[in-house]
Amino acid sequence: MTLKYLTQQLAKTIDEELMSQAGGFSIDQLMELAGLSVAQAIAKVYDNLKYPRVLICCGPGNNGGDGLVAARHLFHFGYKPNIFYPKQTKNELYQRLIVQCDNLNIPFTNNLSNQLKQSDLVIDAIFGFSFSGEIRAPFDQVIQMLKETKLPIASIDIPSAWDVEKGNINGRGFTPAILISLTSPKLCAKQYNGIHFLGGRNLEKKYDLQLPLYPGTDQVIDITNVSGEKL
Amino acid sequence: MTLKYLTQQLAKTIDEELMSQAGGFSIDQLMELAGLSVAQAIAKVYDNLKYPRVLICCGPGNNGGDGLVAARHLFHFGYKPNIFYPKQTKNELYQRLIVQCDNLNIPFTNNLSNQLKQSDLVIDAIFGFSFSGEIRAPFDQVIQMLKETKLPIASIDIPSAWDVEKGNINGRGFTPAILISLTSPKLCAKQYNGIHFLGGRNLEKKYDLQLPLYPGTDQVIDITNVSGEKL
Repeated sequence: MTLKYLTQQLAKTIDEELMSQAGGFSIDQLMELAGLSVAQAIAKVYDNLKYPRVLICCGPGNNGGDGLVAARHLFHFGYKPNIFYPKQTKNELYQRLIVQCDNLNIPFTNNLSNQLKQSDLVIDAIFGFSFSGEIRAPFDQVIQMLKETKLPIASIDIPSAWDVEKGNINGRGFTPAILISLTSPKLCAKQYNGIHFLGGRNLEKKYDLQLPLYPGTDQVIDITNVSGEKL
Repeated sequence: MTLKYLTQQLAKTIDEELMSQAGGFSIDQLMELAGLSVAQAIAKVYDNLKYPRVLICCGPGNNGGDGLVAARHLFHFGYKPNIFYPKQTKNELYQRLIVQCDNLNIPFTNNLSNQLKQSDLVIDAIFGFSFSGEIRAPFDQVIQMLKETKLPIASIDIPSAWDVEKGNINGRGFTPAILISLTSPKLCAKQYNGIHFLGGRNLEKKYDLQLPLYPGTDQVIDITNVSGEKL
């Protein structure tokens, strides 16, 4: 098995094509499957009895939306999720994802520092493959707190604050305990040596991604130690 | 564990509420999870090596949409789905679900009779909980062919042509080998003695449905032989 690592531009192109008329997917569908993949990967590594209290840190974009969906599925898998979502998007989809969590009484916290002390595991749903440039407030402080925590961190798609292609430049970010790449790993993942899962089965027929065969009915596959090359 | 069987009206009310502002779900999300539940239930009972050729018979409404999603997931699970969808809905969502199957080269057939001879298993995605009244063409003939086939049939939500509450009145329908009830079983399922799965974890906090605890990260649970009562 050889993986194909995506440039930022190709990751964007694939995402746009999936949601184009030619791809046929809605963002609701893709986000649902992405969040489910994340929750399943977490459940494969962190037992819900030993690590029940999962703090999901959500950014303002789609990565944050994936985190909101993951929170809901983790609740259904027997975890006790708690959401930190400091820059909530007014967009209708995100408002609905919040309602879905509210209806399950999943709490939202405004105090990251306190909540970290009451958590067993952190999900980093802050920035995804479209991230670039400077890290704006309040996420500069959020990243700093995640750099300092001793809790295991699971990052969605890329470790937040990493450059999508160049990785952890200037030591700006942290190294997560798990990375859950979506569709195909991004170039920065070449520098990542931790537990690595892949989620999202949708693109097998295109772009010569040479995606691995997912086991059974799982939405994720463990790709730790699988080598890869730039596509 | 005791199950709550839903009347047709309550099933409709729950569905509407899920997709209301209070529930926050989009039909894309619910259909994705429903279709995934169906595909997972199939995979638990019918091995993809012994039963690779799955014929999905889709009706004109949401039950048919669940079937289209299930077809896509079954493809990803290693089956060879084939879709019979004689009354295709012009609605944008359904058109997108068709595109998603087309992009995986999942074939659509116009000849049910022939395709039945080349299949190992049938998914009945024709009518769901909102069905009532007479069975209109071409589905009268479709139901007749499914009554005559020796292949195992898996029905989504209700066995098509059954009355949602009264069951198989006048022997109008067939008895499937598997029933995959969504959210909670409908009243007609009280008369059903075959393999029975439940899918859809979304409503635990409402309507006192007393839904069972789903195992692990599965989207379905086997409820064969679990007793129930009318809600």
